[in-house]
Amino acid sequence: MSVYPAPLEHLIQNLSRLPGIGQKSAARVALHILRSPKDLAENLAKSLVDVKEKIRLCSVCFNFTDKDPCAICEDESRANGVLCIVEGPGDQLALEESGAFKGKYHVLHGVLSPLDGVGPEDLKIGELMGRLGREAIQEVILATNPTTEGEATVSFLTKLLSEKGIRISRIALGIPMGGDLKYMDSMTLRHALKSRTLLLP
Amino acid sequence: MSVYPAPLEHLIQNLSRLPGIGQKSAARVALHILRSPKDLAENLAKSLVDVKEKIRLCSVCFNFTDKDPCAICEDESRANGVLCIVEGPGDQLALEESGAFKGKYHVLHGVLSPLDGVGPEDLKIGELMGRLGREAIQEVILATNPTTEGEATVSFLTKLLSEKGIRISRIALGIPMGGDLKYMDSMTLRHALKSRTLLLP
Repeated sequence: MSVYPAPLEHLIQNLSRLPGIGQKSAARVALHILRSPKDLAENLAKSLVDVKEKIRLCSVCFNFTDKDPCAICEDESRANGVLCIVEGPGDQLALEESGAFKGKYHVLHGVLSPLDGVGPEDLKIGELMGRLGREAIQEVILATNPTTEGEATVSFLTKLLSEKGIRISRIALGIPMGGDLKYMDSMTLRHALKSRTLLLP
Repeated sequence: MSVYPAPLEHLIQNLSRLPGIGQKSAARVALHILRSPKDLAENLAKSLVDVKEKIRLCSVCFNFTDKDPCAICEDESRANGVLCIVEGPGDQLALEESGAFKGKYHVLHGVLSPLDGVGPEDLKIGELMGRLGREAIQEVILATNPTTEGEATVSFLTKLLSEKGIRISRIALGIPMGGDLKYMDSMTLRHALKSRTLLLP
């Protein structure tokens, strides 16, 4: 006999499937939901169903959106000539929250990873080539993460785009703001030294 | 303009109302849900609605249950004469998971806390007295948490039950198993010394 009544057990199981939520915190969340007004559970349940029904991929940039094309692709005030290539929607959101980029995005939905069987045809690379043919792009910023796979994707795209005659750039890799050199890995330190910027001539 | 499309924003807001889930992890969970098969969101949504519809309080012990009386209250194989008093359903579940207790429970749904305006009438104390009148109870184990409020509740209940002629006990307070004395607070150490158990005559 399980310790929990069945509906509570089901909720705990379903909650513990979410990333970063183990059995203990799932039980804590479930008990909180039981103690709280019905609204909390109902609103959460509704937004879960809603998000899967209403959110789809933008047919231009392949970011998550509730209308197609997405708000960013339709925004006339944003620079059309600069395309920022990211791995996933989470990366695009982080960049957008920083407010530092005012161009358009293209979401690859992954990175090249031969070990996991992810090749160019599994990513939105064909769609990227299509956009470069259709849209007047002057610069492509490669903003994949600084991992082995992210760097391999950068190499692959650089080679692929080399004949297009457009500017290709890579976001800067180095010590993050507020970071501490003594806690930084040697790969990052090596890169930060190599890519140092000149302050005086 | 929000960075997220509205349905995603709603899901993140609703997730971040749960305990231990901040804005960042809510966004992470929401993106995971978007990437996952529809099942994950639908099962979670269903279990959220289910849990609020099907789970209620047992009319005997006031624990969460999906049938009334609950499985523990109805279990003939459990000792009827011993009643373990706990603050909340979470405490009851922890004890039950330990497998150390084979009697019945009574959930107070709180502890006395004059500062928060919680008096005896806000807890299931009247209902406890009713049970002591109806059921043949030989011992009451007070298992509230070792906090100021938990201890005040122990004092109050001890006084209240003193005329009933039944055994009243308190769970042992001391160093937890695997604990380390050098990280233990002095209140616990003082109590652990005072309540030491004799090993040799």
